[in-house]
Amino acid sequence: MQNKLNSIVKPLLMGPGPSCVSDSVYQALAKPTLGHLDPEFIALMDDIKSYIRKLIQTENQLTVPISGTGSAGMETCFVNLVEPEDRVLVLINGVFGVRMEDVATRLGAEVDSLKFEWGTPVILDSVREQLAQKKYDLVAVVHAETSTGVCNPVAEIGKLVKNNGALYLVDCVTSMGGIEVEMDEWQIDALYSGTQKCLSCPPGLSPVSFSDRAVGKLTNRKTKVPNWYLDLSMITQYWSGNARVYHHTAPINMLYGLYQACYSILEEGLENVIQRHKDMHELLVSELKTLGLELFVEESARLPMLNAIKIPSGVDDANVRGKLINDYRIEIGGGLGPLAGKIWRIGLMGETAKKESIQKLMDAFRKILN
Amino acid sequence: MQNKLNSIVKPLLMGPGPSCVSDSVYQALAKPTLGHLDPEFIALMDDIKSYIRKLIQTENQLTVPISGTGSAGMETCFVNLVEPEDRVLVLINGVFGVRMEDVATRLGAEVDSLKFEWGTPVILDSVREQLAQKKYDLVAVVHAETSTGVCNPVAEIGKLVKNNGALYLVDCVTSMGGIEVEMDEWQIDALYSGTQKCLSCPPGLSPVSFSDRAVGKLTNRKTKVPNWYLDLSMITQYWSGNARVYHHTAPINMLYGLYQACYSILEEGLENVIQRHKDMHELLVSELKTLGLELFVEESARLPMLNAIKIPSGVDDANVRGKLINDYRIEIGGGLGPLAGKIWRIGLMGETAKKESIQKLMDAFRKILN
Repeated sequence: MQNKLNSIVKPLLMGPGPSCVSDSVYQALAKPTLGHLDPEFIALMDDIKSYIRKLIQTENQLTVPISGTGSAGMETCFVNLVEPEDRVLVLINGVFGVRMEDVATRLGAEVDSLKFEWGTPVILDSVREQLAQKKYDLVAVVHAETSTGVCNPVAEIGKLVKNNGALYLVDCVTSMGGIEVEMDEWQIDALYSGTQKCLSCPPGLSPVSFSDRAVGKLTNRKTKVPNWYLDLSMITQYWSGNARVYHHTAPINMLYGLYQACYSILEEGLENVIQRHKDMHELLVSELKTLGLELFVEESARLPMLNAIKIPSGVDDANVRGKLINDYRIEIGGGLGPLAGKIWRIGLMGETAKKESIQKLMDAFRKILN
Repeated sequence: MQNKLNSIVKPLLMGPGPSCVSDSVYQALAKPTLGHLDPEFIALMDDIKSYIRKLIQTENQLTVPISGTGSAGMETCFVNLVEPEDRVLVLINGVFGVRMEDVATRLGAEVDSLKFEWGTPVILDSVREQLAQKKYDLVAVVHAETSTGVCNPVAEIGKLVKNNGALYLVDCVTSMGGIEVEMDEWQIDALYSGTQKCLSCPPGLSPVSFSDRAVGKLTNRKTKVPNWYLDLSMITQYWSGNARVYHHTAPINMLYGLYQACYSILEEGLENVIQRHKDMHELLVSELKTLGLELFVEESARLPMLNAIKIPSGVDDANVRGKLINDYRIEIGGGLGPLAGKIWRIGLMGETAKKESIQKLMDAFRKILN
């Protein structure tokens, strides 16, 4: 019986996530497992909640990491906030908007969607028009569309949603820790993220936060949350208060990883980390230009941490990505859905957002593309 | 800002889980993160599926670890197999049976339950009688009731369920890797487990397996699975086949831990591991006897890995457990629900099931209880 773990060769993760992980986070993952009710562990939980609040700039009491990946965070927000026949509007300009629509539909909501061209941001006038026509219970949008590299105007949409009276739900999986996320300022009511993007922790947890209005909706539900595992009315009894009522056994060691990942960002300074993402994005764009490679998204809507590159005509997508991972141990992402074969997705997330990563990728590109 | 990870002192985990973790599993958790579509990682996934099959003695194709803790595995089985108005029977003799009832009810099923005294096993005659009266779509039971230390007669119940025609769902969270689990032989249709019990991996994943009959039910559903994150019809497209369709980013490093945990058990030999659990249970019972401590469950129904001990009258539950964790760094569990203050739960799971653990606990008990 061969142990395949022994032959893992560390890759340079420059795809849409997971991103590179620092040694300090790896070391955190391997710390001794504590019991999920151990007072030492409870203290760590409290710190984790406060670290998450800082990274998304909120005072929300209900701020917890969900015991699943980013998609579990998405499911958590919808299943706690949406009841059958609720009116939901989803703004869609990529894969992760489509998912939200699917999730809301499965919950029996009356779901409308506004669709925008993939690779372009949500258009505010269309949203304003739709919201003027109909009152919604919830409006959902993706902040950083990982499938296209587009940054949506989340702050501006927030103002429109506020006027409509709906709850405002935002997917911050790829944005948290890489660009500004001002949950309270932007009037976001529910938000979910993931650990494997700009937090640079391995995948497995999903920070989630609810405003008081969102908590109000949860508290006043007519029906039980139809999902036991993700029922926040029970999860919060474990994550706060004095009783710490057991719900499910928390993923202890993954939470160590998240603790360290947040700690490292706060130590470097959130503003500095955000600036680093911006700087590295600009460096990458200028380097790509020297190779004649162009970005898929217009400059004003580009994400720094997810760079969608047009695959030049005549270049074989799979061949280039295969060479990158096999010959250079560099992973980049391909396009999803209608963008398959048309774009590469180069991630500059968290630990990956460093000069050395860009240099290595450019060296490899120069050899492969020439 | 103080980094609390630096002050973690390794405890001896002798509660109901998490259990002690071996150095090889800690090292596995800290291996370099691979991309979730990296061929090296796909090879690991294939091994993990085959290891799980060996530990639960099944040939089931649909055998995957769910990206959440044991409770997520429970939710997965119910949400994929139960449709609104399905007739479900839950056999309840502890906390984890009660949970199953709650989950099935939230899914809109018509749920009956047979309740047995906590601390005693499910009575076959009652089950036979109930199944003779009504046809069910699904019958669910917990194999190893972690809240009481009782082993239910899962093989015998399987025969009765088969005659009824219902699907047979079994919670093997605490039994897998500690006592025999013969999924195919016992005619179990769906099973879930957890990593933090006898597998001795930190919490965070839930092995799940479906028989062909269960897969048939999933395939022929009238409605979409009302849970996107746990929809096995999508998850299996990532975990098998050639396309490896992205669903959610797998919890890579946790899966390394599960890989190593299963590998270690198979290396020691499943039979040897099961015998070790039995031997250590007997040693513990005889040692407890010297202190006048008695077991809560009658001998024929006792689990080796979860030993429920009657708290002697006049002894302060919280005080003893507090001293154990604070003065000796030993964690044991208290009773849940009606058993709070009445029993201690001493786990001998996986890495914890060793002579040294028992010796340390007995030394501490001798000092505290005298």
